[in-house]
Amino acid sequence: MPEARKPVFDRLAIIGVGLIGSSIARAARAQGAASTIVATARSAATRRRVAELGLADEVVETNAAAVKGADLVIVCVPVGSSGTVAAEIGPALKPGAILSDVGSVKDSVLKDMGPHVPAQVHFIPAHPVAGTEHSGPDAGFAELFENRWCILTPAAGTDLAAVARLKAFWTALGSNVEIMDAEHHDLVLAITSHVPHLIAYNIVGTADELQSVTRSEVLKFSAGGFRDFTRIAASDPTMWRDIFLHNKKAVLEMLGRFNEDLSVLTRAIRGGDGKTLMDLFTRTRAIRRSIIEIGQETAEPDFGRAKHSKESPTPMPRPYATGD
Amino acid sequence: MPEARKPVFDRLAIIGVGLIGSSIARAARAQGAASTIVATARSAATRRRVAELGLADEVVETNAAAVKGADLVIVCVPVGSSGTVAAEIGPALKPGAILSDVGSVKDSVLKDMGPHVPAQVHFIPAHPVAGTEHSGPDAGFAELFENRWCILTPAAGTDLAAVARLKAFWTALGSNVEIMDAEHHDLVLAITSHVPHLIAYNIVGTADELQSVTRSEVLKFSAGGFRDFTRIAASDPTMWRDIFLHNKKAVLEMLGRFNEDLSVLTRAIRGGDGKTLMDLFTRTRAIRRSIIEIGQETAEPDFGRAKHSKESPTPMPRPYATGD
Repeated sequence: MPEARKPVFDRLAIIGVGLIGSSIARAARAQGAASTIVATARSAATRRRVAELGLADEVVETNAAAVKGADLVIVCVPVGSSGTVAAEIGPALKPGAILSDVGSVKDSVLKDMGPHVPAQVHFIPAHPVAGTEHSGPDAGFAELFENRWCILTPAAGTDLAAVARLKAFWTALGSNVEIMDAEHHDLVLAITSHVPHLIAYNIVGTADELQSVTRSEVLKFSAGGFRDFTRIAASDPTMWRDIFLHNKKAVLEMLGRFNEDLSVLTRAIRGGDGKTLMDLFTRTRAIRRSIIEIGQETAEPDFGRAKHSKESPTPMPRPYATGD
Repeated sequence: MPEARKPVFDRLAIIGVGLIGSSIARAARAQGAASTIVATARSAATRRRVAELGLADEVVETNAAAVKGADLVIVCVPVGSSGTVAAEIGPALKPGAILSDVGSVKDSVLKDMGPHVPAQVHFIPAHPVAGTEHSGPDAGFAELFENRWCILTPAAGTDLAAVARLKAFWTALGSNVEIMDAEHHDLVLAITSHVPHLIAYNIVGTADELQSVTRSEVLKFSAGGFRDFTRIAASDPTMWRDIFLHNKKAVLEMLGRFNEDLSVLTRAIRGGDGKTLMDLFTRTRAIRRSIIEIGQETAEPDFGRAKHSKESPTPMPRPYATGD
């Protein structure tokens, strides 16, 4: 990790302290990216836990109180709640402040939050493409964003100096930053994240409802591949419900393509066409290799065994925390 | 690991030394489960590598030579080749020997190998439900089968003492053993392994063919979930082509159910039905928890970072080895 440096922002406000919000707090402190961190969360239990964990310099009760005097405000709530939060904080935002978020959908966030942002506030939606299947303030860790991409989707005409400052903040947290328009972001994430999650949720649901194969058999023999899907299908339900409802157009478009391709594979299996299968399976293997080569994955096999890592964190699994 | 013990078999023959065959060789030696291990592989390069790695006491050139005098013969080749191998070795099998395999499909193996098995040989198909995405003799490791299930699918009338001996062998290698009929095995694996692999291959292929999202974007932002699918879609192409062609009926049946369920989800997204999504996502999270509870997975988040493990092996990645 780089040495602590001159803070990018004086006062950082984090609204919502789940996996992402708490990781931002930890990373910003570890990197000295903000002088003061103030945090708030909807539930009193989460606020208490944030205070216990010492994740922020100040833990306050309302969103409006959190943003008062803040230079950077990051809204870390499910995308379905971003409009409501923007309406609450809009009047309290400091002129010249930067308002951002971490939602996995960007076009709806622009449209839902945008109207509530005062003219003198720089609104720059953002999406750090990083995460685990765990939720809640305990699940976060300072290294989550290292060597991961953070995508900024400023509307046309956004102040370039403000974009540069937000970029500097995410760079300080270890991220690579890319800028693209919101609509393209939503298409990219539909195929790299949203549809993969949907089909993982779906296959786990299908397996759970079978009469011919017992649930006990599904669990016992999950090492055959199913296990990997359950990891993704263990992600926060509220967050993911909102993503699908708010990125409807791109998700349905990509699902359509997925289904077309699956029909081709189904026909190949029915007709005994081994060549079609072999060609695809060989091509997909090369893609895996490319992802490892660019450092977004390791080649180490993962087969569901305990690992004793010096580097990776071991957060308390709290799969039922709501993460807000 | 348990202490070395009295060998379960005197002479073990392994035909095909990929990930599974080489792991059996390593585990059998580590556990002292066989006094002598003889191995063979189709390609001279693989046989040379097996000799270099010292995986077997003897490395021979032909399948018939390998099984001569063996008490246990395990065929570790793609299921599409098992009939051919059985035809080659049938006449050379020792009376009283046990013949087994490791294929992920069992009904076709029973039908393809069965006719070539002499009357005095005990034929007991088997499937160790364990693996990684790597292939070839270097990819194997002795611990692969520990706390994983091995399913035996003997035909009706198979000698019970022979079944018990094969069970003792797999137990010595660290596996839990379950016995079921071949047809049920194929249905269970279709949903826990085969269809998950198919949809992983499919989504990786879909992403690779998009015009609207570049391949570079797919790779860069793969941490959003896509990455996990590429691991599964990096599995051995020949092995998986054969699985789909040989478990056609059960795979098509489970694919049909998967598609029905996906239609329901698609309709929920199109209609903005958050409740249906929320209900499913909550249910799937509980299944993940159950898999962790029964020890088939760890709760530790996996986010594509290098791990420094004392326990897990670090085989050379050889994704393009053919594994035979």
